Amino acid sequence: MNVSEIGKAFPRSEYIRRLAAVKSEMERREVDAIIINNPTDLAYLTGHTQGHTFSAQGLVVSLKEEEPTFILRQMDAMAAIHKVFLRRENIVGYSEAFIANPNADGYDVVIDCIEKIGLSSGRLGLGLSTLPVEKFRSRLPNAKMVDVANLVSWVRIVKSELEISVMREAAAITDAAIAKAAEVIRAGVREADAAAEIIATLIRGANGKPGTDIQNFFLCASPRTGTGHISWTDDILRDGSQVNLELGGKRHGYCVAIMRTFSIGTPSDRLLRIHEAEVAGLEAALSKVRPGATCSDVAKAFYRTIEKRGFRKESRCGYSIGINWFEPTAMLKEDDLTELRPNMTFHLMLGNWIEEDFGYVIGETFRVTETGFEVFTKTPRKLFEI
Amino acid sequence: MNVSEIGKAFPRSEYIRRLAAVKSEMERREVDAIIINNPTDLAYLTGHTQGHTFSAQGLVVSLKEEEPTFILRQMDAMAAIHKVFLRRENIVGYSEAFIANPNADGYDVVIDCIEKIGLSSGRLGLGLSTLPVEKFRSRLPNAKMVDVANLVSWVRIVKSELEISVMREAAAITDAAIAKAAEVIRAGVREADAAAEIIATLIRGANGKPGTDIQNFFLCASPRTGTGHISWTDDILRDGSQVNLELGGKRHGYCVAIMRTFSIGTPSDRLLRIHEAEVAGLEAALSKVRPGATCSDVAKAFYRTIEKRGFRKESRCGYSIGINWFEPTAMLKEDDLTELRPNMTFHLMLGNWIEEDFGYVIGETFRVTETGFEVFTKTPRKLFEI
Repeated sequence: MNVSEIGKAFPRSEYIRRLAAVKSEMERREVDAIIINNPTDLAYLTGHTQGHTFSAQGLVVSLKEEEPTFILRQMDAMAAIHKVFLRRENIVGYSEAFIANPNADGYDVVIDCIEKIGLSSGRLGLGLSTLPVEKFRSRLPNAKMVDVANLVSWVRIVKSELEISVMREAAAITDAAIAKAAEVIRAGVREADAAAEIIATLIRGANGKPGTDIQNFFLCASPRTGTGHISWTDDILRDGSQVNLELGGKRHGYCVAIMRTFSIGTPSDRLLRIHEAEVAGLEAALSKVRPGATCSDVAKAFYRTIEKRGFRKESRCGYSIGINWFEPTAMLKEDDLTELRPNMTFHLMLGNWIEEDFGYVIGETFRVTETGFEVFTKTPRKLFEI
Repeated sequence: MNVSEIGKAFPRSEYIRRLAAVKSEMERREVDAIIINNPTDLAYLTGHTQGHTFSAQGLVVSLKEEEPTFILRQMDAMAAIHKVFLRRENIVGYSEAFIANPNADGYDVVIDCIEKIGLSSGRLGLGLSTLPVEKFRSRLPNAKMVDVANLVSWVRIVKSELEISVMREAAAITDAAIAKAAEVIRAGVREADAAAEIIATLIRGANGKPGTDIQNFFLCASPRTGTGHISWTDDILRDGSQVNLELGGKRHGYCVAIMRTFSIGTPSDRLLRIHEAEVAGLEAALSKVRPGATCSDVAKAFYRTIEKRGFRKESRCGYSIGINWFEPTAMLKEDDLTELRPNMTFHLMLGNWIEEDFGYVIGETFRVTETGFEVFTKTPRKLFEI
């Protein structure tokens, strides 16, 4: 193995395919170049899954150039050389003089790049909420700024076979982590000790493929099951405690999420009833998944099923998932009419936080197939009784 | 122990002290209220170290009200009830109708709160780069918007004794993690397996105090020591490999950073020379630390010492550290004339990425004392030979 290739998740041809799809969308929206600086789109278009986001960085994708130019802090440019598919000359590291300097930062180097490729008067697509638009407007007064927030996100909603393969690797890690949780969640164990074992499994990975990062690890134990977003506390698990877990294996940025509920000791009737209702809702939702159906169809099947059993869920029941977990595009909710297409991937997220001290979670990550759906993980859809 | 208090790091009096300091600064800048939405300032002013940042949230600190009002997604409000010092009625959870809704989001609820406390025409301090200022301007046309970016950061630069105690707990975790690294970094071990053990230690913690989160874990092994920001790769550690580690224990948000370099096998002359130069530089820098000296004095001592030995470092040599690691205030660099005061805390960050395939790291977290400095950790300042 060539060590300089160690971190590269995909061949060059995959990135060229992604760029072609983005450029086609740029043409449709009549923009000459887009400037990307969010870590997820950067990872999608270059393979850059490392590095810090606190210093300015930008990828300039121009219709004029085959390969984009990636501008980032010199220290991080070294990481990019190891991780991204771009030719060396398209990775521009800027010096430390631009760090913590009130007069010039890395975005000035990005703007220099736009000037150099002759786009000072071009139509520039910026994600307007994340880039310092005032600086772009004042230094490029003749350019036309167009908001392209989510342009790349809508391209990445349909995964390639290569991306699906990486998600399968992540899914095996997800399964291993839940199996470890079932081993270590015990009365008398500190929440932190259980979390340490489960997270170590997420890093060691499965089938010889390590996890490449940790994202969204939540362990909410009694009396904190009424919320979805506590990692772990200083507390000790007890007889009668319930533990709600949300986690996901991660490979080269791609996440496969899962949610499962654990009961230390015999589950209460209340817990059993919601578990049965939610599993029925989950299966009803999955049964609607096929190309041409809508996000709304899937969501309605879930909501109607649990309502018949006397429950309801306030929040949406899922979202598109991929690099760095959540994608800001299609959502599994009643008013989202996005049509499902093969190789869209979703987290069917059925966490249901019902009372201040009581909630239940179950969730699966699936892809849309040519005829229906495939759930990525193999973990049974049970309430884990410890 | 009262389980509802399990996650609360500090007594109410500590938060009241912090709020008083912030309000005094608000009076000086003549703002009636500030709206905070960055996770670090939120943690500082309320104890909220959990929850997601992808949905809108805001803390409204008004001179008119003793306690601030914290507006966040209902699901996360449940976590806040467990974690923050605020009275229940000051935690406002908004419904799922504001999630992924293009017409109204959680910031509309924040603006409703500002109207309710009678500040529609007030002087409002916003961190202008992180809040949706256009929405505030259009819904509150009579308010005067003032940029207060970093107002809270400058208040939190000096730590209380309670904060220093929590940092000591974090420091013990940092030491335990480096001790674990010295055990598991071996030829033939996968980088991921070493990372899994070290990160599990950061979670299990030390002295009965678990780590409460993971932040900034970097393991850059040959040939990737020329960069500071790679977590780990799919690669295997080898005889002759060098490993640069940056990590930190974390308790209730507070981080204590460390950097150390490991050599599997006999270190090269080049590595030994830079290690000696950097340790001399580190000690020279620390010797300048005392109240009244400036950040510049400390930085100059480091740079002049390594220059005499034929080295230089491009990047700044440190920064103020506290909740969630980096604080955007004082930096250890030659042109930063901030005066040191007792209980300021810094990461003296001496990572030096010299060539594309060669870098060296050492770093210590210290506090300024009444007469000099105290390094938080006990790990020796050696090049770890494995």
